[in-house]
Amino acid sequence: MKAWHFSGTNEPLVLAEIPEPEPGPGEVLLDIKAAGLCHSDVGAMTDAGWMALIDFTPIVMGHEIAGVVTKVGEGVTQVMVGDRVGVCPTAGHGAPGYQRNGGFTLQHVAHEGDLVPMPEGLSFEMAALGTDAGMTSYHAIAVRGEVAPGMKVGVIGLGGLGQIGARVGVLKGAEVHVAEVNEDVWPLAEKIGAASVVKSVEEWAGRDLDLIVDYAGFGTTTSGALKAIRQNGRVVQVGMGRLETTLDIRDVILKEAQLWGSMGGTKEDIAAIYEMLASGDIEPISTVTDFDGIPEGLEKLHRGEIQGRLVAKIAD
Amino acid sequence: MKAWHFSGTNEPLVLAEIPEPEPGPGEVLLDIKAAGLCHSDVGAMTDAGWMALIDFTPIVMGHEIAGVVTKVGEGVTQVMVGDRVGVCPTAGHGAPGYQRNGGFTLQHVAHEGDLVPMPEGLSFEMAALGTDAGMTSYHAIAVRGEVAPGMKVGVIGLGGLGQIGARVGVLKGAEVHVAEVNEDVWPLAEKIGAASVVKSVEEWAGRDLDLIVDYAGFGTTTSGALKAIRQNGRVVQVGMGRLETTLDIRDVILKEAQLWGSMGGTKEDIAAIYEMLASGDIEPISTVTDFDGIPEGLEKLHRGEIQGRLVAKIAD
Repeated sequence: MKAWHFSGTNEPLVLAEIPEPEPGPGEVLLDIKAAGLCHSDVGAMTDAGWMALIDFTPIVMGHEIAGVVTKVGEGVTQVMVGDRVGVCPTAGHGAPGYQRNGGFTLQHVAHEGDLVPMPEGLSFEMAALGTDAGMTSYHAIAVRGEVAPGMKVGVIGLGGLGQIGARVGVLKGAEVHVAEVNEDVWPLAEKIGAASVVKSVEEWAGRDLDLIVDYAGFGTTTSGALKAIRQNGRVVQVGMGRLETTLDIRDVILKEAQLWGSMGGTKEDIAAIYEMLASGDIEPISTVTDFDGIPEGLEKLHRGEIQGRLVAKIAD
Repeated sequence: MKAWHFSGTNEPLVLAEIPEPEPGPGEVLLDIKAAGLCHSDVGAMTDAGWMALIDFTPIVMGHEIAGVVTKVGEGVTQVMVGDRVGVCPTAGHGAPGYQRNGGFTLQHVAHEGDLVPMPEGLSFEMAALGTDAGMTSYHAIAVRGEVAPGMKVGVIGLGGLGQIGARVGVLKGAEVHVAEVNEDVWPLAEKIGAASVVKSVEEWAGRDLDLIVDYAGFGTTTSGALKAIRQNGRVVQVGMGRLETTLDIRDVILKEAQLWGSMGGTKEDIAAIYEMLASGDIEPISTVTDFDGIPEGLEKLHRGEIQGRLVAKIAD
């Protein structure tokens, strides 16, 4: 079957013919219906630091996978042929695109323990982006941030993750304020029910927000968030746009503030976001391409030309 | 009665004669027996930034007070004449030395709601230092850090606060590792039951400690602590030796680590540390001076010539 092979930093993806995989014990074979394209794919292609995370090359990239079960291996009890599922990339049986071949091909072998059932009404494209963009956004604000009704919450960055996180906050009953540097995106803030939108987190100084989730991570966003948080408030850091941040430690100590890191998530997070996507409560901005369009799509992601998330429709 | 008056930044304390105070409703009058000297007194005398925290001048400094109740105001129900008490500086009725006259004199008026009873066997000197140094140390490791039996804990800095915090960790059943730049203090680490002592937190990188409490706060100690903490571990920041710290945000995100600020504490924290001081389980290194020695004592603190905490014995 055809597949896009990645061999190393700064090398283009190469169209390859690979054997159809066979599910081992506890595993299933999927027909891939949709595969999400992610900024971390771009990272792996352009920054040598990522190679340490990739177990072998050439490898099929793509860690956001949704599809239909076509075959089950020995001892599989939780799913059956015909089931529509998403694949959790961080559930422990080998991340697609890193420890096993990923989604930029036609079929995929996954461990049954990594699968999340798709609810009625959820499209494969939404199910694919739900496995990472959805999971990560939800985990940051709902699990690490413990967002709750009535809370005053700041969301920094309304990109692929922040747009989902902000909407989760609104759905959970919080008063959500958005900081987004790109004014072209501001109408989206209103659409998802945000109470206000500002250009910079600095405008929040002294606002005493209960929780701030930083989906951007430009260093100054973290330090600015700590100036905007209330006494005993929490800043959740998920975006990693810069690798260093300089904090005024008085903001941490005098306010007894908390800074929590957030990364990835769990199958439960995916199940939660799947419900919100299936009901239409969350409608993330996304762009759809196809199998042939994957290399060009990654280039567009790299150049910042994609609004929202980018998903490849692999099969009907 | 005699008192040491503070009038402003870079002005020496002046010996003054002030009227004996009268307790109002809900308040009591104490004969001050001991008053602790603190680095923040030195801060207030030398750094103009502190003046914003002081409600009036001239003021009697000194926020670590222990004494005996000699008179009770109208409606006081929780204490009686003759009670031996410490004064919690952060319990909400006006911090001594900041919002009301403090301990560098002979008598003190405190609200009954700010008083902590002294257990049998606790000296006034220990009770005085317990109100701030003890409370703050305990609050950071026990309340904010939630230290528990079997935890691997790092304590940064074995000064006036860290020596108490490290010992609290040991008493709570944790395996305590100390980072202390001054090797002269290393024997103290062994004496209080620490499992190991290193010169720099950098030596802990990759040690996967469950909790690190930074009583030093030199910026690099915070960033180093985040490199030494385990997945999902917590760094508690209480020392504020530098006002800025630069973090590698990957340490926060990839490990889902937490950075918590800690400041001051509660009457419950003081009561807990009083028990440990009264039983002899904690024996903080301290130096005792007297009323006349207060200005010179503060100068010595400023020059770093005092080991452990410095307490003025005001009366027998």
